[in-house]
Amino acid sequence: MSGSVNFHGSHKTRMRRLLRPNGRTFIVAMDHLSRPGGTQPIRDPQRVLAEIAAADADAVLLRHGTAVRHAEQLGRMALVLSLNHEDSFLEQSIRLALRLGADAVKVVAFPGSIDLASSVPNLGLLAAQCDQWAIPLIAEMIPVSFEAKQAHTATNIASAARLGSDLGCDLVKTKYTGDQKSFSEVVRLAHAPVVVLGGADGDIDSLFKSVREALDAGAVGAAVGRKVWQSEVPGRIAGALARLVHEDVSVKTAIREASRVTLGPRKLR
Amino acid sequence: MSGSVNFHGSHKTRMRRLLRPNGRTFIVAMDHLSRPGGTQPIRDPQRVLAEIAAADADAVLLRHGTAVRHAEQLGRMALVLSLNHEDSFLEQSIRLALRLGADAVKVVAFPGSIDLASSVPNLGLLAAQCDQWAIPLIAEMIPVSFEAKQAHTATNIASAARLGSDLGCDLVKTKYTGDQKSFSEVVRLAHAPVVVLGGADGDIDSLFKSVREALDAGAVGAAVGRKVWQSEVPGRIAGALARLVHEDVSVKTAIREASRVTLGPRKLR
Amino acid sequence: MSGSVNFHGSHKTRMRRLLRPNGRTFIVAMDHLSRPGGTQPIRDPQRVLAEIAAADADAVLLRHGTAVRHAEQLGRMALVLSLNHEDSFLEQSIRLALRLGADAVKVVAFPGSIDLASSVPNLGLLAAQCDQWAIPLIAEMIPVSFEAKQAHTATNIASAARLGSDLGCDLVKTKYTGDQKSFSEVVRLAHAPVVVLGGADGDIDSLFKSVREALDAGAVGAAVGRKVWQSEVPGRIAGALARLVHEDVSVKTAIREASRVTLGPRKLR
Amino acid sequence: MSGSVNFHGSHKTRMRRLLRPNGRTFIVAMDHLSRPGGTQPIRDPQRVLAEIAAADADAVLLRHGTAVRHAEQLGRMALVLSLNHEDSFLEQSIRLALRLGADAVKVVAFPGSIDLASSVPNLGLLAAQCDQWAIPLIAEMIPVSFEAKQAHTATNIASAARLGSDLGCDLVKTKYTGDQKSFSEVVRLAHAPVVVLGGADGDIDSLFKSVREALDAGAVGAAVGRKVWQSEVPGRIAGALARLVHEDVSVKTAIREASRVTLGPRKLR
Amino acid sequence: MSGSVNFHGSHKTRMRRLLRPNGRTFIVAMDHLSRPGGTQPIRDPQRVLAEIAAADADAVLLRHGTAVRHAEQLGRMALVLSLNHEDSFLEQSIRLALRLGADAVKVVAFPGSIDLASSVPNLGLLAAQCDQWAIPLIAEMIPVSFEAKQAHTATNIASAARLGSDLGCDLVKTKYTGDQKSFSEVVRLAHAPVVVLGGADGDIDSLFKSVREALDAGAVGAAVGRKVWQSEVPGRIAGALARLVHEDVSVKTAIREASRVTLGPRKLR
Repeated sequence: MSGSVNFHGSHKTRMRRLLRPNGRTFIVAMDHLSRPGGTQPIRDPQRVLAEIAAADADAVLLRHGTAVRHAEQLGRMALVLSLNHEDSFLEQSIRLALRLGADAVKVVAFPGSIDLASSVPNLGLLAAQCDQWAIPLIAEMIPVSFEAKQAHTATNIASAARLGSDLGCDLVKTKYTGDQKSFSEVVRLAHAPVVVLGGADGDIDSLFKSVREALDAGAVGAAVGRKVWQSEVPGRIAGALARLVHEDVSVKTAIREASRVTLGPRKLR
Repeated sequence: MSGSVNFHGSHKTRMRRLLRPNGRTFIVAMDHLSRPGGTQPIRDPQRVLAEIAAADADAVLLRHGTAVRHAEQLGRMALVLSLNHEDSFLEQSIRLALRLGADAVKVVAFPGSIDLASSVPNLGLLAAQCDQWAIPLIAEMIPVSFEAKQAHTATNIASAARLGSDLGCDLVKTKYTGDQKSFSEVVRLAHAPVVVLGGADGDIDSLFKSVREALDAGAVGAAVGRKVWQSEVPGRIAGALARLVHEDVSVKTAIREASRVTLGPRKLR
Repeated sequence: MSGSVNFHGSHKTRMRRLLRPNGRTFIVAMDHLSRPGGTQPIRDPQRVLAEIAAADADAVLLRHGTAVRHAEQLGRMALVLSLNHEDSFLEQSIRLALRLGADAVKVVAFPGSIDLASSVPNLGLLAAQCDQWAIPLIAEMIPVSFEAKQAHTATNIASAARLGSDLGCDLVKTKYTGDQKSFSEVVRLAHAPVVVLGGADGDIDSLFKSVREALDAGAVGAAVGRKVWQSEVPGRIAGALARLVHEDVSVKTAIREASRVTLGPRKLR
Repeated sequence: MSGSVNFHGSHKTRMRRLLRPNGRTFIVAMDHLSRPGGTQPIRDPQRVLAEIAAADADAVLLRHGTAVRHAEQLGRMALVLSLNHEDSFLEQSIRLALRLGADAVKVVAFPGSIDLASSVPNLGLLAAQCDQWAIPLIAEMIPVSFEAKQAHTATNIASAARLGSDLGCDLVKTKYTGDQKSFSEVVRLAHAPVVVLGGADGDIDSLFKSVREALDAGAVGAAVGRKVWQSEVPGRIAGALARLVHEDVSVKTAIREASRVTLGPRKLR
Repeated sequence: MSGSVNFHGSHKTRMRRLLRPNGRTFIVAMDHLSRPGGTQPIRDPQRVLAEIAAADADAVLLRHGTAVRHAEQLGRMALVLSLNHEDSFLEQSIRLALRLGADAVKVVAFPGSIDLASSVPNLGLLAAQCDQWAIPLIAEMIPVSFEAKQAHTATNIASAARLGSDLGCDLVKTKYTGDQKSFSEVVRLAHAPVVVLGGADGDIDSLFKSVREALDAGAVGAAVGRKVWQSEVPGRIAGALARLVHEDVSVKTAIREASRVTLGPRKLR
């Protein structure tokens, strides 16, 4: 995949903030919006940010408010501003990203959705804006919706990933297909670098396994959220994931790393 | 919470108009729109403004018309321009706030609502505008709607408050949860300073009690409307609330303060 | 109400075109749009304009086309450009008003309406525009709709009038409540000067009576349309109304004035 | 009607391209959009344009594409750019008209329509734009819709015509009412110059008769489309119509003119 | 048709990138968006682009992302940026095209459609934008929808093609009608140069036959997508089509050309 990660020909020089010289990236997602009856908010973003920065995460996905409030905890991590996919004032959003010193923006799109169909045209328009300001665009491409898991087939994930790429995004974030063979097809078809997302399901071991397999299938990295910040040892989980991504360690090694007890008896979740 | 009230690192220097050096604020809400069959208008805003200014309220929420008509009664109080949450011409609204010399703007959002779902994306866009013009944004975060009281659980209030904060507001105004323990969780999760709202229910005593408990739980202040201006002695109520907020007096002391009869035989309501 | 009519502190110096030094105004409404099955058009606007100008009307409400076509008949009357309440291109409309040399704009809003709910937010946005360009804004505030007469209670009219004022209009035009006591409450609550509208119902006598009572209740004037221009002697009706408004004559005197036969045997309607 | 045709006081000097010094105009409508199952396209616009230009038509209604493609065939005819009534990007449309060197724009509106209700507010906004750029605006005013012929009563046509005029158009195009008396009422009420439209119904003789009667009732001209360009001798029909309009010939003379056989045995349709 | 291809009078000098001096063009469509359950993505666009460039295709239709990623493989081919027909931020899209160095833009419209009715007004607005920036506009005109094949009659295709032309496009892309006689009527009525599209149905032989007949009926070229890039020998298919278009070879010759085995045993599909 290294051919695809070559961004030096691009006018988006901010890409060097997202991808290391090895073409890989480990991103922590902290842009989850709490909603009544839905995801609970991150209890202590300040500590999580400090720990993941120390664990050498490459970038962090944040919302406007969090980005402003915790700018000092970002360290050398790239700031990716997470936008609302319903936004129609795209120019305003890009200007905000520029004012906040963001290195990229991220949006989610749901190809095949009826209710949120507008997110796909919006993606194209956002890509046009990002091109104008040379801001890298990360598109999280999810067939139909997060809930419609029966639509998350390998074929649909591949076509969704490519759709994001064709509409002009610079990095695709998508779900693991469940096996390495079909995910390597996702990577092959995507034509933009792919990062695999973490999600809330399963345990840490299965997350590490899916990230390892996605990387071996050609993904350039992982973007993990809840499995990091819902853990009691976010820095440890992040450090282990960073080694999976950048040092190509085995799942076994990563699990050992995450379970080290140097920071005291905190619980893995 | 004093860590959160530190706005000196922010580019929004107008925050000093909202929060006193002690990090606290007492706001009077006078932005209620009268509607057929709904809230009745404030009978004598001029007198109310004069009395609350004399009682050392820190800020007042007003609509455009009232702000223009009563600029001379504002004294040293901060002017917070209350915007319509359906507004789509956000830039226009912010320019109006600047022309009126407002120190902040305020908008309401209803996370979890279907009918008014658009108010949440609008909040993000408004926050982007406020960032551009360095105008503090107060978000009144109410789960679902004012009427849907069954949705006003402590958990939902906490997630709504945090949503406002994550989307970029500078001060969250929300409902008291009913007990100090759960409200301290709201404050802890909010990540923006929280002011508790007054509402129309209950009597003055229960209002004072909820404000006291909210402050003790970490709120930076209170924003009270009808309980002030529907009273026959608005200045007295405001003065008592100001002492609750800024001098940390007990509810008992505040009630005594509000009941002083020096201004004649006017009725508490 | 004379306190409320003080516009000298306002940046809208065009207010002096609407209100005479006595704080009063007599406006003729000629902005009715003809529609299939609805109001019939004004047959001879040129003659009506000439007659009402001669009768010393203070202002006239016109649509774009009529304002352009009859600019020469306006004399010293203030031109109030009547806008469509559905307009979303507000800036364009205000620029048109400025190009036409209008002294104010007027729009109708229907608080409590479901179908036309958007007219209320639009009013706020229009007020923001008018503030920017220092154009006085007249808001015709009608609970629910012109047809929903059961919603036109005194309480609803009062809350609608105040809503217009709070949203930033400079002059409220609304219906007479039917009795002087309740209309003085409308005036008291409005916080902007109020002009009473004429409407199509009833005869000339009852119109004169309601205008007299409204003025005595504190209204700063009247805005009358069909009862003027559907009459065969528009100048005579206008002259009588002007005397009611500015010289505080009795209804009896006004009726005598309107019935003078100096201009020949034309019919009062 | 000559009083109404006086446009010398207007800032829209382009009006001289539409109306001859005699205050009259003969317009050919070639702006019909072909749609699946609907109107068939004009087979040979180049020849039609050449013939009607030779026949001294004053103006031609064209769409963007046709105007660009056939600019060289326009001769001295005024170019009227026909706009979509659903257009919301009005400023863009006016700029296009200016770039194309159009002398006026034309739009259709359907007062009383539910489905297309938005066309009426749009007309007002377009008029504001046309005022800004001093572009004459022709409004085709059709009660309810082209299909709803039961709504095309004389009263409705009159009120629709006046609505267009009040909203700011410079020339009204509307249907013949069927008799001269009621059409002279349309003209009297319109307050803008009126041109009668041709339509697809009936034969050439009845078209000539209705144009003659409309002119005698005060119309300033005719705008005829299909009866010209669906004919095999468009120039002949146009020439006859031009004489009806400008030389006040009788229907009989016009028919003789249209039937001259000098150009060979082509069929009148 | 050569009369229609004369673009030298146009201000759109970029037309010379689309049409060769012989007035003909062979375009490869690679702008298909993959969707869950729909079209599968192009597996190896880089190789396809290299092969079709070598085969002397005149232009290629690409999406934003593909255009950026494969700019180096475009060679001398014209770049046509394919836009979303739902786009409302037209100005943004045109600016993107200019920044990408595109030679034209392309959009699809569905006349007669209910669901996508807005695509037709959008076409007019896009044409206005393209006029402003002198960007050629290719309109793919499909009656009702791609799926509604019963609506794809010769008459409907002709009226759709002309609609595109009248609304201001510079090149019409549409379906073959099935026989040469009716397609020559499409060409005659279109008034803009017509290119026939390839589609997914049928085999290579029938594609070649329909392209040959369309050209003989007056089309100025062909725009073929899936039949080129789903083939294992895209360069060979493209070369054969280029000879059909530019050298007027017979279908038989073209098939022989496409079947040459010089590049090894790859399969025609």
